[in-house]
Amino acid sequence: MKQLTYGMVGGAPGSFIGAQHRRAINLDNLAILTAGCFSRTPSKNITTAKELRISPEKCYRNFEEMARAESSREDGIDFVVIVTPNVSHYPIAKAFLNAGIHVACDKPLALTAEQGSELEKLAEEKELLFMVTYTYMGHVTAKHISRLIQSGKIGKIRTVMSEYPQDGMARLFNEKQKPEGWRLDPMQGGSTYCLSDLGTHVENAVSTMTHLKIKRVLAKADTMIPESILDDNDFVLVEFEGGATGMFWISKIALGHANSFCIRIFGEKGSIEWNQEECELFTLTDEKGNVHKMRRGNRGGEAEASSYARLPAGHTEGFLEAMSNLYASFTACIRAKQDGTFFPEMVDYPTVTDGLNGLRFVEACERSSKEGNIWVNITSVSS
Amino acid sequence: MKQLTYGMVGGAPGSFIGAQHRRAINLDNLAILTAGCFSRTPSKNITTAKELRISPEKCYRNFEEMARAESSREDGIDFVVIVTPNVSHYPIAKAFLNAGIHVACDKPLALTAEQGSELEKLAEEKELLFMVTYTYMGHVTAKHISRLIQSGKIGKIRTVMSEYPQDGMARLFNEKQKPEGWRLDPMQGGSTYCLSDLGTHVENAVSTMTHLKIKRVLAKADTMIPESILDDNDFVLVEFEGGATGMFWISKIALGHANSFCIRIFGEKGSIEWNQEECELFTLTDEKGNVHKMRRGNRGGEAEASSYARLPAGHTEGFLEAMSNLYASFTACIRAKQDGTFFPEMVDYPTVTDGLNGLRFVEACERSSKEGNIWVNITSVSS
Amino acid sequence: MKQLTYGMVGGAPGSFIGAQHRRAINLDNLAILTAGCFSRTPSKNITTAKELRISPEKCYRNFEEMARAESSREDGIDFVVIVTPNVSHYPIAKAFLNAGIHVACDKPLALTAEQGSELEKLAEEKELLFMVTYTYMGHVTAKHISRLIQSGKIGKIRTVMSEYPQDGMARLFNEKQKPEGWRLDPMQGGSTYCLSDLGTHVENAVSTMTHLKIKRVLAKADTMIPESILDDNDFVLVEFEGGATGMFWISKIALGHANSFCIRIFGEKGSIEWNQEECELFTLTDEKGNVHKMRRGNRGGEAEASSYARLPAGHTEGFLEAMSNLYASFTACIRAKQDGTFFPEMVDYPTVTDGLNGLRFVEACERSSKEGNIWVNITSVSS
Amino acid sequence: MKQLTYGMVGGAPGSFIGAQHRRAINLDNLAILTAGCFSRTPSKNITTAKELRISPEKCYRNFEEMARAESSREDGIDFVVIVTPNVSHYPIAKAFLNAGIHVACDKPLALTAEQGSELEKLAEEKELLFMVTYTYMGHVTAKHISRLIQSGKIGKIRTVMSEYPQDGMARLFNEKQKPEGWRLDPMQGGSTYCLSDLGTHVENAVSTMTHLKIKRVLAKADTMIPESILDDNDFVLVEFEGGATGMFWISKIALGHANSFCIRIFGEKGSIEWNQEECELFTLTDEKGNVHKMRRGNRGGEAEASSYARLPAGHTEGFLEAMSNLYASFTACIRAKQDGTFFPEMVDYPTVTDGLNGLRFVEACERSSKEGNIWVNITSVSS
Repeated sequence: MKQLTYGMVGGAPGSFIGAQHRRAINLDNLAILTAGCFSRTPSKNITTAKELRISPEKCYRNFEEMARAESSREDGIDFVVIVTPNVSHYPIAKAFLNAGIHVACDKPLALTAEQGSELEKLAEEKELLFMVTYTYMGHVTAKHISRLIQSGKIGKIRTVMSEYPQDGMARLFNEKQKPEGWRLDPMQGGSTYCLSDLGTHVENAVSTMTHLKIKRVLAKADTMIPESILDDNDFVLVEFEGGATGMFWISKIALGHANSFCIRIFGEKGSIEWNQEECELFTLTDEKGNVHKMRRGNRGGEAEASSYARLPAGHTEGFLEAMSNLYASFTACIRAKQDGTFFPEMVDYPTVTDGLNGLRFVEACERSSKEGNIWVNITSVSS
Repeated sequence: MKQLTYGMVGGAPGSFIGAQHRRAINLDNLAILTAGCFSRTPSKNITTAKELRISPEKCYRNFEEMARAESSREDGIDFVVIVTPNVSHYPIAKAFLNAGIHVACDKPLALTAEQGSELEKLAEEKELLFMVTYTYMGHVTAKHISRLIQSGKIGKIRTVMSEYPQDGMARLFNEKQKPEGWRLDPMQGGSTYCLSDLGTHVENAVSTMTHLKIKRVLAKADTMIPESILDDNDFVLVEFEGGATGMFWISKIALGHANSFCIRIFGEKGSIEWNQEECELFTLTDEKGNVHKMRRGNRGGEAEASSYARLPAGHTEGFLEAMSNLYASFTACIRAKQDGTFFPEMVDYPTVTDGLNGLRFVEACERSSKEGNIWVNITSVSS
Repeated sequence: MKQLTYGMVGGAPGSFIGAQHRRAINLDNLAILTAGCFSRTPSKNITTAKELRISPEKCYRNFEEMARAESSREDGIDFVVIVTPNVSHYPIAKAFLNAGIHVACDKPLALTAEQGSELEKLAEEKELLFMVTYTYMGHVTAKHISRLIQSGKIGKIRTVMSEYPQDGMARLFNEKQKPEGWRLDPMQGGSTYCLSDLGTHVENAVSTMTHLKIKRVLAKADTMIPESILDDNDFVLVEFEGGATGMFWISKIALGHANSFCIRIFGEKGSIEWNQEECELFTLTDEKGNVHKMRRGNRGGEAEASSYARLPAGHTEGFLEAMSNLYASFTACIRAKQDGTFFPEMVDYPTVTDGLNGLRFVEACERSSKEGNIWVNITSVSS
Repeated sequence: MKQLTYGMVGGAPGSFIGAQHRRAINLDNLAILTAGCFSRTPSKNITTAKELRISPEKCYRNFEEMARAESSREDGIDFVVIVTPNVSHYPIAKAFLNAGIHVACDKPLALTAEQGSELEKLAEEKELLFMVTYTYMGHVTAKHISRLIQSGKIGKIRTVMSEYPQDGMARLFNEKQKPEGWRLDPMQGGSTYCLSDLGTHVENAVSTMTHLKIKRVLAKADTMIPESILDDNDFVLVEFEGGATGMFWISKIALGHANSFCIRIFGEKGSIEWNQEECELFTLTDEKGNVHKMRRGNRGGEAEASSYARLPAGHTEGFLEAMSNLYASFTACIRAKQDGTFFPEMVDYPTVTDGLNGLRFVEACERSSKEGNIWVNITSVSS
């Protein structure tokens, strides 16, 4: 079987996420990195390319050149991975779609729902695959939970609590530092920080696990660190279609929390609780209140999700395995596209539509907050 | 030293809380139960009195008679404990205050803030002590946290997350049962259930631990169990005076949660997390994000709160010790009143004013929810 | 119903455990303290008696006088509680038994198995009740576990891991202090410290929960703190009758552990894990490895043990409730003795025989350790 | 920089560990797999080679042929990875050492200490690198702990508790199955199962983290599952040089434990507790008993170990990252050997000597158990 090849835009040293995408793809040797435009600084770009053993002719000065060249080469890449600051996701993704190349893009998909919507349409027109790497949904336990709920295990959902507290921003400011340059610059990162960086994960996980659709939100997005300019602590009330409710907390000032992304889902016949910091486990409660500690691996009847696991129970898997699970489906779909065997139900990764839903959520929250914490319909957001 | 004596209104077998008040007072032999009106059903009243070794002449047919008789007897009780359904807290407390007898009353203080305000004024006029038994604030760790925050340990508070999930109601309805009769009857329990039963605890703990004052609330009080008639799942957004924010969740439908009352307080220089189900512990994080596991007892420099402890670290204390700590201060104040040595700073228990604050919080939440989840100032509530 | 009365030997201020026995008895008003010999220092004795409202004539100068006087008085005590240093348990218990008075004695029962055996025989001859307060076995969860195992829930037991680490001694020596005077004095506390103070709890809990009988032990009792003279860190290998094995660790030098008494019992069809620091919970695993988090209260089908609970699930109970549960059975048996309705199956507290088993365990361990960590049969110990 | 290449012996589908070694090496693209002898079954061997994109000429029928051929080819492998059943570790490693090829071998190193000793001498003579993949010691937290202890953070060590409970064997027999064929066959797996499979990890982790040297052991190795023939539940008492003591439990019958490998190290000035199932965390207690929750990542001053981390705190790393950390050092040492810049202090992975120490530990335990649970000096074992 021929190896797939891919290119990367962004991901020079200093980029946290670029290296992780490469590792996630390496893990099971899903594709080979053969092209890239790793930095807008030429020297950084060239050095990174060398380190990654990219041939000089496939190290591009800018993404436009790269999209053009790769689309016309015999040995052109099968897909591109976009790991740049938020502001450039949209133009880069657009360029590669227009060049007929499948796209994997880090979240958030773009700066605005309008941009996201355009990308969704373009991908559809071009019949190209588009993955947005909401990494946490690749965890075996996340897959398992999504299926348990779909199967009716906890009955009709009544309420959903989700939170994503981090303390990075509080700690940085306490130590007289700041987050990476572009993150607090609205021109590069967008008009929200906490909401777009973490809130999109919350929206995606809730949607993916519960299969519910958000109807409207009421949000309070605050800037609690005086030296900051964007939101760092957000509250969101949610109404889902069908009557369920939800409450989300998203924060960058929660001292003591490295990355405590949690979801708790309460149904009529049971509940499920999951914390990504203990991603090997979740808690399943039945209608009588009996609590079961579930573990990834060959226990608790999770046969249906075990295909995502690499290691037996108790041998810890983590973030990279989760991301790799997304890429495993994405690359399998690309191969199927190339073979002509693709069908939509194969897609087992977050798509451009999921990315767009995240942007709509963020925009609705932002509007609600600005207009005095009123209810805003998701559908009222630019589409 | 002469033994104090007390009387009880309510607390016949079947009342969960009456027996606990007696145990909490017994624990350190703070006072002797000598009078009571335990039930409106005469036979139950008499049987309970016998079991509790109350002399027949001090077993009263109704609380009015009891207040009158005890206030005029030589051997009249030093204080009364009110453990009846919510609806009667107000008239009973009023009767005993008017009779010149100190009052300990279970929460919520009354059905309305108006009633509560009247009781506050009456207690002040009569110069009588009035305790509302917000039991959880008697925990050694709760005392410790309150003092740590007062001392500036975590700096200025930015945000406060509190939740009080239970699953009793979901489980009862799943098993085709219902909570105790009066609890879902608005005529006896009041116009809210979850808010008044659990929300008052949240408000009190947040106020007691953080020393912040709530300015306004935005609430969404829902009835998720179709067979129910009162709120069983509530969300509250909070703004405190001085700029801090908060978010509360209060629920009776959270399958898997017996009584998971938690508070997490995030300041500029640290954070504190406390869960009443693990009341021997709390977590203290410093400004750099280092996490310390604090334990009740002789560790972590909590000398200041150790006077409340009965047992060394690792020997578990619980709910009854917490309640007993409230009664220890209450009875010490009564003795001081009797000796003429009382001064207001002695008061180390939740007062009628704390009870009133709880009612104001509930009323503001109720109004907010009814009017479409809008902000309601606490001061706008009947005072 | 007439109130029972009791006397106490030991328990002046400064005694940790004396006050706890009084509180445990107070909690449900099981008996009234009417007599005592609280200290060998007359002034302390008299002051304590006053504080506890003991009439001067029932405050005795020594236990011999007390036993004699109380046995002949009309208003003599129904039972005595012995809370003195280990060395005097034996003579005091003997004196009261000889005086015809029921005995509750703190653990360890005596200094030697020989003494314990004599007490056992004497109690039997005199037909008196004798409780040894292994407090932890009064926890609702401990009762529940004992019954689950008896009912075959986890099948035939294969192996039992138990540990009781504390850090008090390490901390005291690090702070240039020492444990309470008598504890490290072999003349008062006995020839072992850690083994007799904590090891007896381990032996009792294992026996009570598993219903297994220890056949032989191989122990290594070490003194790791150079300034100390008695054992502070003990390892024990165990063989039970019927083929099960066990391994115990008992320590006073385990920095970080306040009182982390744990038991883990592995059977053919399941396992149970219990930690007294989280005494409201335990873990039950089935034969397929599925893990259930069990909580005291009305969950998980523990109906059979719920009679021991005072509070609903999630409302924390602790050490004093556990001790009170022992006293509830002990005083019920005393009443039955007085009424002539007593039968042996009523006994639901640790007896003098349990106390003797603890001493035999300690002696066998001590001998094993001294003779080079060889196997020592329990039956070979003085009986 | 030229890519390193490696070959693999063993690791056909069905081998749990072979795939993990490949993933760990892939993760950071440390080397390329170019040769292999994946199975003794020719068809399996060839199929695996194809799947892994090995050229047919480098797919060997047996390891002898592979060692010979690869040592003489221009494009010969830089190192071999041995992931076969225990019995063949020794002959395969010997063949590759004799062929002048560096070796990475799964644990246990061999069947006997005598074999291990021979391999150690051979590697030394040939000046070849030899890694034994005790994976858990590659965790960032494990590195951190080892350094903290070396730096004196917890003072002189007093006692070490380690346990490695699994339940796989109990569950398999309960479900009428068995562990992988060779594991319970003494001819292929060796004369112990639990001791060699898990006990070697315990010995290695204790040695690596504490820097203590075991002087003697007293062991009790039992077969609790009647249908089994090798040990499935082992107890070990340990004396270290310098006076510290230890106690280990190693089990395959501990229902509820997937892979709960834990170490607790108690020193004069503090303690450290680590559980591989929560490998992102550990607990550090100071001399006063204050407990700190330490997290992998940029917290708690662990700067010295942060070079091993790939992801920021709270983004979970696991087993594969740990194994990859071992390979990172191993391949760096190979490059240095090739460049002539190697020096022994570079070695930051478990070596053949560590593997040999594991075998000596197992043999001493086995002898102790057979001879009636007596003390056996480690040095008395074949060397």
